[in-house]
Amino acid sequence: MKVKGWLPCIEWVASYSRVIAGQDALAAIIVTLMLIPQSLAYAMLAGLPPITGLYASIAPLVLYAIFGSSRTLAVGPVAVISLMTAAALEPLFPAGSAAYIGAAMLLAALSGVLLLLMAVLRLGFLANFLSHPVISGFISASGVLIALSQLKHILGVTAEGQTLLQLLPSLVAQLPAIHVPTLVMGAVCLVFLQLVRTRLKSLLLALGMSPGWADSLTKTGPVLTIIVSVLVVSLFDLADSGVRVVGSIPEGLPALQLPTLDWQLSLQLLPAALLISLVGFVESVSVAQTLAAKRRERIDPDQELVGLGAANIAAAVSGGFPVTGGFSRSIVNFEAGARTPMAGILTALGIAITALFFTPLFHNLPHAVLAATIIVAVLSLVDFGSLKRTWRFSKQDFIAQAATIFGVLCMGVEIGIVMGVGLSLLLFLWRTSRPHSAVVGQLPGTEHFRNIERFAVVQSEFVVSLRVDESLYFPNARYLEERIIELMVDYPNCKHLVLMCSGVNLIDASALDSLEAIVERLKTAGVQLHLSEVKGPVMDQLHRSEFLQNFGGQVFVSQYAALQTLDPLSVKRASHSVAE
Amino acid sequence: MKVKGWLPCIEWVASYSRVIAGQDALAAIIVTLMLIPQSLAYAMLAGLPPITGLYASIAPLVLYAIFGSSRTLAVGPVAVISLMTAAALEPLFPAGSAAYIGAAMLLAALSGVLLLLMAVLRLGFLANFLSHPVISGFISASGVLIALSQLKHILGVTAEGQTLLQLLPSLVAQLPAIHVPTLVMGAVCLVFLQLVRTRLKSLLLALGMSPGWADSLTKTGPVLTIIVSVLVVSLFDLADSGVRVVGSIPEGLPALQLPTLDWQLSLQLLPAALLISLVGFVESVSVAQTLAAKRRERIDPDQELVGLGAANIAAAVSGGFPVTGGFSRSIVNFEAGARTPMAGILTALGIAITALFFTPLFHNLPHAVLAATIIVAVLSLVDFGSLKRTWRFSKQDFIAQAATIFGVLCMGVEIGIVMGVGLSLLLFLWRTSRPHSAVVGQLPGTEHFRNIERFAVVQSEFVVSLRVDESLYFPNARYLEERIIELMVDYPNCKHLVLMCSGVNLIDASALDSLEAIVERLKTAGVQLHLSEVKGPVMDQLHRSEFLQNFGGQVFVSQYAALQTLDPLSVKRASHSVAE
Repeated sequence: MKVKGWLPCIEWVASYSRVIAGQDALAAIIVTLMLIPQSLAYAMLAGLPPITGLYASIAPLVLYAIFGSSRTLAVGPVAVISLMTAAALEPLFPAGSAAYIGAAMLLAALSGVLLLLMAVLRLGFLANFLSHPVISGFISASGVLIALSQLKHILGVTAEGQTLLQLLPSLVAQLPAIHVPTLVMGAVCLVFLQLVRTRLKSLLLALGMSPGWADSLTKTGPVLTIIVSVLVVSLFDLADSGVRVVGSIPEGLPALQLPTLDWQLSLQLLPAALLISLVGFVESVSVAQTLAAKRRERIDPDQELVGLGAANIAAAVSGGFPVTGGFSRSIVNFEAGARTPMAGILTALGIAITALFFTPLFHNLPHAVLAATIIVAVLSLVDFGSLKRTWRFSKQDFIAQAATIFGVLCMGVEIGIVMGVGLSLLLFLWRTSRPHSAVVGQLPGTEHFRNIERFAVVQSEFVVSLRVDESLYFPNARYLEERIIELMVDYPNCKHLVLMCSGVNLIDASALDSLEAIVERLKTAGVQLHLSEVKGPVMDQLHRSEFLQNFGGQVFVSQYAALQTLDPLSVKRASHSVAE
Repeated sequence: MKVKGWLPCIEWVASYSRVIAGQDALAAIIVTLMLIPQSLAYAMLAGLPPITGLYASIAPLVLYAIFGSSRTLAVGPVAVISLMTAAALEPLFPAGSAAYIGAAMLLAALSGVLLLLMAVLRLGFLANFLSHPVISGFISASGVLIALSQLKHILGVTAEGQTLLQLLPSLVAQLPAIHVPTLVMGAVCLVFLQLVRTRLKSLLLALGMSPGWADSLTKTGPVLTIIVSVLVVSLFDLADSGVRVVGSIPEGLPALQLPTLDWQLSLQLLPAALLISLVGFVESVSVAQTLAAKRRERIDPDQELVGLGAANIAAAVSGGFPVTGGFSRSIVNFEAGARTPMAGILTALGIAITALFFTPLFHNLPHAVLAATIIVAVLSLVDFGSLKRTWRFSKQDFIAQAATIFGVLCMGVEIGIVMGVGLSLLLFLWRTSRPHSAVVGQLPGTEHFRNIERFAVVQSEFVVSLRVDESLYFPNARYLEERIIELMVDYPNCKHLVLMCSGVNLIDASALDSLEAIVERLKTAGVQLHLSEVKGPVMDQLHRSEFLQNFGGQVFVSQYAALQTLDPLSVKRASHSVAE
């Protein structure tokens, strides 16, 4: 059982059949066709030679197939992680240099080790701290940044920079140097790819094709673009007239080798590796969970850490760079009928064959075409409309989302995401440190107690019922003391204060100290504290202190029971009223 | 009203009287006698010339009296803040050098500005994140570290180091160089001061003295020790035989001057200044609140930020170093009968007179005696027993406390407190990311619903009631999805799932996304989601999204009402059962 837990492949290998193999193979062919341009393009985005994109799409896929728990996740280079790789390495080394390539491998290794470490230490929950608004803002802003960084390839110019503020002026300064043939080719590709993405599917559906197939075919549009563009460049010798092309790519499989272990550099890359791991994990798990739910399969987030960790270490020792599960690619894999991770192994085989035999075909592939495939892909991820929805629903989530977008665009991807996560946590803790609390009374005709300001309820004359809508813990321990002091000023006739704990999910040591202080202060004012509706786990915890023996009050199973004991007349009054 | 808010002194000045002045003056005399040795000693602890301790006890007290909201808080140098000052500056400059003194003034200025900034931005809540176990662990460990750092003065040797691991070997290596006369004098003082602290009070009480007076007199023991030791050193010319003494102290008041504004250094000192501000604020507010509660006065934490900020800026421009409200000193002030902050102004006057006329008297004051007063004072703060209580009550609080103690002792005060706060937050978020949830049923004979595993309750056959004991927000958004999928496996006959939201104090955008996903998944399984006992603020928030229109279920005022509508037969069954 334990081995099975760590090697999810045992399960599907045992029941593997020819029928399933056929379905996997078909999916693998479609994903391979989609992955070839993507892997070349994302390597370029990461500042690496295109071949490293192919390298990063062989061994990692096999390792994920062995250790990953999702049956249909398609692993490989993805846009956001490639952007983060470039952001981490470009300040350190010249893009494409041997040191840069080595550092990319080291980054993949660090990211893999961190993912495995998180698996062993069960730290997968850390990924939860990337809230939806932060992730959504991060992906939108990254999309804009990626598109902008690729614009130089479409324009045939050079431009530098990691942020909007650096990229825009750099591009504008280069406008006079635009290379017209490159721009024409890039623009045509952009328009064509955008049309394929937005129109082809409905066209195919109108022609009677099944939605799944139409979707998958649409996703292979980039391959067609690449073939045509290579033919055009070769026919018209455009490379000689200044259209930048991929050039010679070494044939063959990557040599297996450990990245150079430079401790100084490792330490420097560690924060970037951590962010890459977390973002990659979140992106991957989200798509894996969505797909698993569709077929009522389960994925195990902790096992996903193992799978992605193994994939990244495989990338590191085979000349690649950080990888994760890709969103659109996994959906294509799923829709094309992949049943097991064998589809991933077959995809790796397809890429390996490409690397072995077909790399000369990419010699005349223009950078502008790769850039166009990237731009069309990432712009579809940009969704600034969600800012509006978030604003309406929660100002705090909005602040976190807006800060993430602003940070990514103006200060870089790493600072942006750290700002977003930091702000979400800070805002949550701020809110929780001033919790909502309500004085409650009995809803006439029921045993239910609600806020006196929102409902027409019956209150006792000398029993005050306070419902605190937050766990009692260190950020708000002091707040409760202040709230209760104020309450006693408002209710001078109060003899009993019942703290209704239905919203209290935890009492920590700081809050326990505060409760003890509150009991003392109330006693000097002639008021006795009681508790009601204390949940099981909280009760268990209180039993581990001396509080219950010393506080002098009672713990009632319900607020109703508390009032029945402390002021039966008020209960009678409320029960006999007509419910509204 | 607004001016009054920012200048709390207006209130007490208006009603000041001769009687109150007498009480304040008496308290001021006692506090002055206590503060003279303390301020000299804590300056030494901070690595500064003794006179800076007196400087830090004049202007800051006056400024706090004007801007602070506590009537009895006694501000000045305190042990923990002095240790933190030394920890921040000793790695940068030689202790006692002009650069060191300037940096200490800069640190006070930064700390003052940060406190004022927190007041303006209403960030006082940040101090709440120093949980009680972390603060308690921090103070205990700091006490040990301070005592150890002062041991060199008792032994008459030199020793270096910021942590246990540095101090201990350094001290052991110096053992052969012990200066016997210094050791004898130090040891005698230690024993005497300890006896005064532990025995004198009961002796005085036995002699019929009032507890308040006995306490205050006990606290002036160090003054007696100082007088006697100065006499002994002078009489026997011990300074010539190698007992290190304070030496010449310049007479007069500090010159008012701005600390040198070195931006590079300011940036370097900022983290230390932030920690000093927070720790100082927490220590000060705790004692201020305790004392205010005793006399039914109120303090305003935001105004305390202003008062302490002003005090630190005053320290910065008058040759001092970071200050805050002292624990034992404030209690003495309170017990000695101080009624208003005028006692603080009078104390400042006392210290000013001392600085003007009496500094030559301190020439022969031995370092060993000052060290002894520090050691006895701080060891009384050490309370490792609280580790045991914390362990029993909450393992998570224990981990945070133990990490703080370990960090402070072995890695330094700043790292220690950051570790403690970081771990408390991380552990809280970890716990909150796997919240407790319970399937609930109706308590027979009541309208109350409790955990089916803890109570003998009645459950409906096709309505499952799930109570989630946590706010629904990003750290646990994914968890809820998983929990509900599992629940549906356990209850195959379920037609309605009622989410009882009594413990849900907040739903954020991430959780809203999850809820929408849950509704979709439940629908495909033929189950309808409903909500019950949704609190007002959460309901307001849901109204700002489309969730309530789209989810297809109902929102019931209580769990009882939900069951009455969805499965009246089960309610009838439960209501007619006999309550246990």
